[in-house]
Amino acid sequence: MNNSRFLWLPVTLVLLGAAAVVAATAGKPQLTVMRVGSRALIEGPAANFTGKATIDRQVRPDASQRTMGSLVSFEPGARTAWHTHPLGQTLIVTSGCGWVQVEGGKKEEIRPGDVIWTPANVRHWHGAQPDSTLAHYAIAESLNGSAAQWMEKVTDETYGPKDVTCKTPKT
Amino acid sequence: MNNSRFLWLPVTLVLLGAAAVVAATAGKPQLTVMRVGSRALIEGPAANFTGKATIDRQVRPDASQRTMGSLVSFEPGARTAWHTHPLGQTLIVTSGCGWVQVEGGKKEEIRPGDVIWTPANVRHWHGAQPDSTLAHYAIAESLNGSAAQWMEKVTDETYGPKDVTCKTPKT
Repeated sequence: MNNSRFLWLPVTLVLLGAAAVVAATAGKPQLTVMRVGSRALIEGPAANFTGKATIDRQVRPDASQRTMGSLVSFEPGARTAWHTHPLGQTLIVTSGCGWVQVEGGKKEEIRPGDVIWTPANVRHWHGAQPDSTLAHYAIAESLNGSAAQWMEKVTDETYGPKDVTCKTPKT
Repeated sequence: MNNSRFLWLPVTLVLLGAAAVVAATAGKPQLTVMRVGSRALIEGPAANFTGKATIDRQVRPDASQRTMGSLVSFEPGARTAWHTHPLGQTLIVTSGCGWVQVEGGKKEEIRPGDVIWTPANVRHWHGAQPDSTLAHYAIAESLNGSAAQWMEKVTDETYGPKDVTCKTPKT
C-alpha cells in the first residue's frame, strides 16, 4: 500500500506527456486509409428496402463537406423503396444488372459502367433484377443533414418479376 | 411553286405542336442514364500528371450540387502531381495497386476496396506503382468552382521506382 504513494508522480508525468503528444498532433490533418474489410457494413433498413441490401459507407461527411457515398449491394430481387434526394444523386453501377425507374417512366436496365443522375426531388427507385445481383455506388449531397427522403415500398406489381431483361445465366 | 403556299399552314401547325411538347416537358427534371462507353474520356493533363492517366468524369455538378467525381485509370508508373483539395477528397480504389503519400509521410500501398480520405488543404499525391496499373474513383466537392489546387510534379526520387511493394505478376 505504501508503494502506491510513490507511483502517482511518474504516472501523472506519463499521462501529462501523453496529453502533450495528443495536443501536438491534434489539429494536424492527415490522410486516412480505410482498408477493405475494416469498415462496418450495415444492412439496408427494412423500412427503406425490399429484400436484402448491404451498405458499405465509404464517403463520410466531415465539417468541410456534405457528400455521402456508399457501395450498395443488392441480392436478386432486392430494391429500394420509392425516394427522393434533396440535392440529387449519382449512381455508378459496378456489378450485376438491375433496374432504375423514375415515377411515370419505364423501368430501365442498368449495367456495370452505367452512371445514373437523378435530379433533386425526383421520385424514383433502383435495385437488382429478379435473377441478378446489383452493386452500385450511390453518391449524394445532404441538405440539412439529410441525403434522402424515403417513401412507400415498391410493390411486386410495379417491380414486375416477369419483366426481367437481364440475361444473367443462373449457376 | 403554287403548292408551297398551301404548305405553310400545316408546317406551322406541326412546328407549334412540337414547341408545345417541348414546353410541356421542359423543366420537368428526369433521370439520366449515361451508358458505359458513351461518355467522353479525357487524358490527365501533362501539367498535373506524370505518365498516362485516363479520366472518366462520372459525377458532374449541376446548379444544386458541388460534388465532382471521376474514375481515374493510371498506367504503370503514372501519378498525379502534388496537390490539395479545398474541401478534401475521397479515393475509392477499384483495381490494380498504387501509392498515396501525404507530405512528410511515407508512401502507402493502396489496393482495391481501400478508401482514402484526404482532408482539406493537405498536400499529397497518388498513382500507380511501377509495375501495376491503378484505377480509383476520386470524389471531391468544389469551392468557388475549383476542386483541386495543383502544384509541382512528383520527382522520380520521391516516386522511388525501387520502392515497389505491389507484387503483381508481370505477364
